[in-house]
Amino acid sequence: MLVNNRHYTTIQYDENTAEIHIIDQTLLPHRFQIATLATLDDFCTAIATMQVRGAPLIGATAAYGLAFALAHDPSPQQEQAASEKLLATRPTAINLHWAISQVRRSITNCPEEFKASTALQCAHKIRSDDIDCCIRIAAEGARLIKDIHNTKNQAQQPVNILTHCNAGWLATVDWGTALAPIYKAHADGIPVHVWVDETRPRNQGASLTAWELHQQGIPHTVIADNTGGHLMQHKQVDCCIVGSDRTTASGDVCNKIGTYLKALAATDNNIPFYVALPTSTIDWTLDNGIEEIPIEQRSEDELRKISGLDDKGRVCEVALFANSSAANYAFDVTPSRLVTALITEQGIIKANPDSLQALKITLENSPT
Amino acid sequence: MLVNNRHYTTIQYDENTAEIHIIDQTLLPHRFQIATLATLDDFCTAIATMQVRGAPLIGATAAYGLAFALAHDPSPQQEQAASEKLLATRPTAINLHWAISQVRRSITNCPEEFKASTALQCAHKIRSDDIDCCIRIAAEGARLIKDIHNTKNQAQQPVNILTHCNAGWLATVDWGTALAPIYKAHADGIPVHVWVDETRPRNQGASLTAWELHQQGIPHTVIADNTGGHLMQHKQVDCCIVGSDRTTASGDVCNKIGTYLKALAATDNNIPFYVALPTSTIDWTLDNGIEEIPIEQRSEDELRKISGLDDKGRVCEVALFANSSAANYAFDVTPSRLVTALITEQGIIKANPDSLQALKITLENSPT
Repeated sequence: MLVNNRHYTTIQYDENTAEIHIIDQTLLPHRFQIATLATLDDFCTAIATMQVRGAPLIGATAAYGLAFALAHDPSPQQEQAASEKLLATRPTAINLHWAISQVRRSITNCPEEFKASTALQCAHKIRSDDIDCCIRIAAEGARLIKDIHNTKNQAQQPVNILTHCNAGWLATVDWGTALAPIYKAHADGIPVHVWVDETRPRNQGASLTAWELHQQGIPHTVIADNTGGHLMQHKQVDCCIVGSDRTTASGDVCNKIGTYLKALAATDNNIPFYVALPTSTIDWTLDNGIEEIPIEQRSEDELRKISGLDDKGRVCEVALFANSSAANYAFDVTPSRLVTALITEQGIIKANPDSLQALKITLENSPT
Repeated sequence: MLVNNRHYTTIQYDENTAEIHIIDQTLLPHRFQIATLATLDDFCTAIATMQVRGAPLIGATAAYGLAFALAHDPSPQQEQAASEKLLATRPTAINLHWAISQVRRSITNCPEEFKASTALQCAHKIRSDDIDCCIRIAAEGARLIKDIHNTKNQAQQPVNILTHCNAGWLATVDWGTALAPIYKAHADGIPVHVWVDETRPRNQGASLTAWELHQQGIPHTVIADNTGGHLMQHKQVDCCIVGSDRTTASGDVCNKIGTYLKALAATDNNIPFYVALPTSTIDWTLDNGIEEIPIEQRSEDELRKISGLDDKGRVCEVALFANSSAANYAFDVTPSRLVTALITEQGIIKANPDSLQALKITLENSPT
């Protein structure tokens, strides 16, 4: 996607220098800065400090990290040590495990002199597969937006879409998941306008989603997380599209805290609530999301402190309150009954056990 | 209520100096500072800059402001000019109009030499009536909290109450509306714990409600506005109590933006959703809150910028994002079907037209 009118992806291999370039997301929206990763430590730091974040992007970064470690030392000891070090950066990230496994499988029985290049090819494939997956989600979801546009009385009236958190290209390699259909519809000439929940406490909406949309030239408005219900009551939202960190076999969706409240308001106002996700986020072992998905509790300081630019343009952290404790649940679960449909790279499906079972059979029978 | 273990009200007449003392709420929670009001300009500035806020407190402050203006010059010209100046400070505040009318009515046909003292007595009455009203709300609501406590298996398990925004003593003269039943239950020995929505964008929950509860020694936890739904799904909320800025004759409630989302979650999880309000907030001319109540839109900067303490302990404002527009709706309307009951100074009533009509008849027949 575009930054300052130039195309970027979140992670890019430089063939001339054999280095990886990433966008340092901890500096957004205040600074756009490319960071260079060349050693295993660089990769581990980038994931741990959230210079890269979002499940698909974490996976791709870890894959490159292991390949780079093997280029330095292709021994089995190094493979094991580097894998463990990468896995320790974000212990709960499912895609991290998946990507490391993919790379290690690719070099099983591989002579040591070819291990680094084989691992690098595998990392390239993980990266390009993620782009392909998001492009397919974009195409599927854009059809829904076009359908809504067709039902509007006036062709130039924009389709108003509400999104929560950041499931844009910054969370993937390119395109994103929830924002991908919006980018595609916009590219196809459909007028769109996005309501961007600021997404407290980490403000990924105001800091990342709004920044993405601004760079892409897509009309949007930042709102407090409290606002979506009022907008839906007053017919200012045509549909919601959010992402998913984990999806059950019954269609329950675990996503950023607050998603459930927006799904309730959408249902109460007969507004479609769509969830865009790669099928890799489906956890086929789970049936009841509310009971079975453990919800990560993060530091109180994410709620108590916030960073922004002071009047001299310096990034400055301020404390909002002092003497009270805070609770910081990172995700919540939206039950499938509140989800209109799932937008996947395999097509649009209903959020119910039968539809998901049919998808599972399709995936099992498709070539890998 | 208590501040540093000493009893305060939000507005206090000093008989020795004939001055008014208020708590400067713009400095909370970082500084507790008493401001002195002595001239009409002082009163107007205090209301306009939100050193005092909350409908009942704005009314009491305006009443004293008019009395003080008349002490300086009791002419009809001054009465008119001072009234207009006070009304212009917060043009949409209903209680401001009501309080000014009360004072002016009290001095109709009053000889000029008695106007100032009569107006001051009226202001005193507005102030003391507000305290009485909140104490009655406290007693009514505390019964509901005790009932919940009685149904808990373990007597020492606290009643978990979620509140949104600040409807505490800082919004009134003393006690508050939504927080009043909590203070009363706590004083009566019922263990309580309050989930405090931070209440973006102005953070009245994190800045004012949490500060009040801390000063009063009441266990509480600040949460992002996104969090209540998750807590309700996991049975960590026993009831919600919020305030109301305007209530329709059908029981719809206009309160701080985001209230509607919490009411949806409470209904979805079979959790009682109570609204505490003085009957003076009921607008008997309205039936459909969503269609009829105009919602104030405030400055984008309330969302874009935020103040806190920097690492040197100075209050510092930072910008959270720059290149995106923002929408800032201050209130939303919760339809009566989502409200379990209204807690008023006249008792607890159902949020429906029949119950409100019965209340209206009671009010019309009661001595003023």
